[in-house]
Amino acid sequence: MIKTIAFDADDTLWSNETYYSQGKMAFAQLFSRFQDPRTIIHTLDHIESENIEMYGYGIKSFTLSMIETAVKIAGDNISAQEIKDVLAIGRNMLTLQPEQFEHTQSTLIDLSKHYPLMLITKGDLMEQGLKVQRSGLAHYFQSIEIVSEKNSTCYRDLLKKHNIHPVNFLMIGNSLRSDILPVLEIGGHAVYIHYENTWAHEIIQDLPDYPYYYEVEHLGQLPALINQINQKA
Amino acid sequence: MIKTIAFDADDTLWSNETYYSQGKMAFAQLFSRFQDPRTIIHTLDHIESENIEMYGYGIKSFTLSMIETAVKIAGDNISAQEIKDVLAIGRNMLTLQPEQFEHTQSTLIDLSKHYPLMLITKGDLMEQGLKVQRSGLAHYFQSIEIVSEKNSTCYRDLLKKHNIHPVNFLMIGNSLRSDILPVLEIGGHAVYIHYENTWAHEIIQDLPDYPYYYEVEHLGQLPALINQINQKA
Repeated sequence: MIKTIAFDADDTLWSNETYYSQGKMAFAQLFSRFQDPRTIIHTLDHIESENIEMYGYGIKSFTLSMIETAVKIAGDNISAQEIKDVLAIGRNMLTLQPEQFEHTQSTLIDLSKHYPLMLITKGDLMEQGLKVQRSGLAHYFQSIEIVSEKNSTCYRDLLKKHNIHPVNFLMIGNSLRSDILPVLEIGGHAVYIHYENTWAHEIIQDLPDYPYYYEVEHLGQLPALINQINQKA
Repeated sequence: MIKTIAFDADDTLWSNETYYSQGKMAFAQLFSRFQDPRTIIHTLDHIESENIEMYGYGIKSFTLSMIETAVKIAGDNISAQEIKDVLAIGRNMLTLQPEQFEHTQSTLIDLSKHYPLMLITKGDLMEQGLKVQRSGLAHYFQSIEIVSEKNSTCYRDLLKKHNIHPVNFLMIGNSLRSDILPVLEIGGHAVYIHYENTWAHEIIQDLPDYPYYYEVEHLGQLPALINQINQKA
């Protein structure tokens, strides 16, 4: 029996990876006199991935990785203007309005009438907090949790804090690694929505084989699925 | 009657501003062929302060402000190595072990026997989380709250979440703006510990005039003060 429904935010409620893709393209364009864009983005992805452990997720971390990549690519030929332009790419990303998916708002309106909703998002506290405010969706959620890493310990602690039993908990997200597997591991329900641009760092090959695992194509299919689950329970 | 005791972390339990001062000095040294260190630090402080609203607090934000300052000071004469050195100053700060004050550990041991302790710290989620872990003090606290801004709304929400009445709550910290005034405003108790290097952004001229406001010189004086308050109550 599902009693509490939790959503991931980036690339689940709104498109986020698009902004990173656009940021990367702008960056590659900026240094295209040194290397071809594809090689530049490859180097940036590699540096970004190496820096995750030290910098964590978010646009400020991404900006620092762009600076590091720029120096690696351009060396002493880097200009002051180019560094300013890299900082500007990051700043622009920090102020973008998240672009909601087609079914986001209607699904939240529907589900929030019947269930307490949670938002559980990973990343930079300030960046994510401001993004949720800018989205205009914050009022649908009874609680908003911003965490630095989504693993089973994190979910276990969150559920304990909110007095929720895993079997009464359903998490929806686009990342098998962060939203789905750790929730299934602690005995909760999880709904996977595949998002086409899922980041290389996030891809896991095999789909999970758990009784409480579900997939949908878009958020609009959620209310019917949850009704089904609760009728069986 | 005090029932729950909360601590600020940076410059209350351990010295933090020292690391920023050292980072600033290393930065000023790096660009001393362009300007004198005092002018460089002044420019950096100004840029950092302007960026707070967009970047928030923390070492990654500070590093981005150093990059911006470096470009402003050196212009096109900036070298790849200098940018790498700036990134390295930031990285070094991210991995430093916080240096506890003389009375930190003994006070936490003492108070945690009699009261639930909270840690309430402002800043970058990942940076602060890792710093608390590295400090070795995390186990003294029943809850650790990392927030993006410490204002009266934030304290009101935290107390509500933990079912604490303000009159039963005592907050200890080195920042009048973040730790003391907002807590007094909502009717809680607050103990101010003056820390000599308090950051320019944080300084408030007048000390507050509230019945639940206290001052101590160091953490070792806390247990006796709290006993006094509770004997009067």
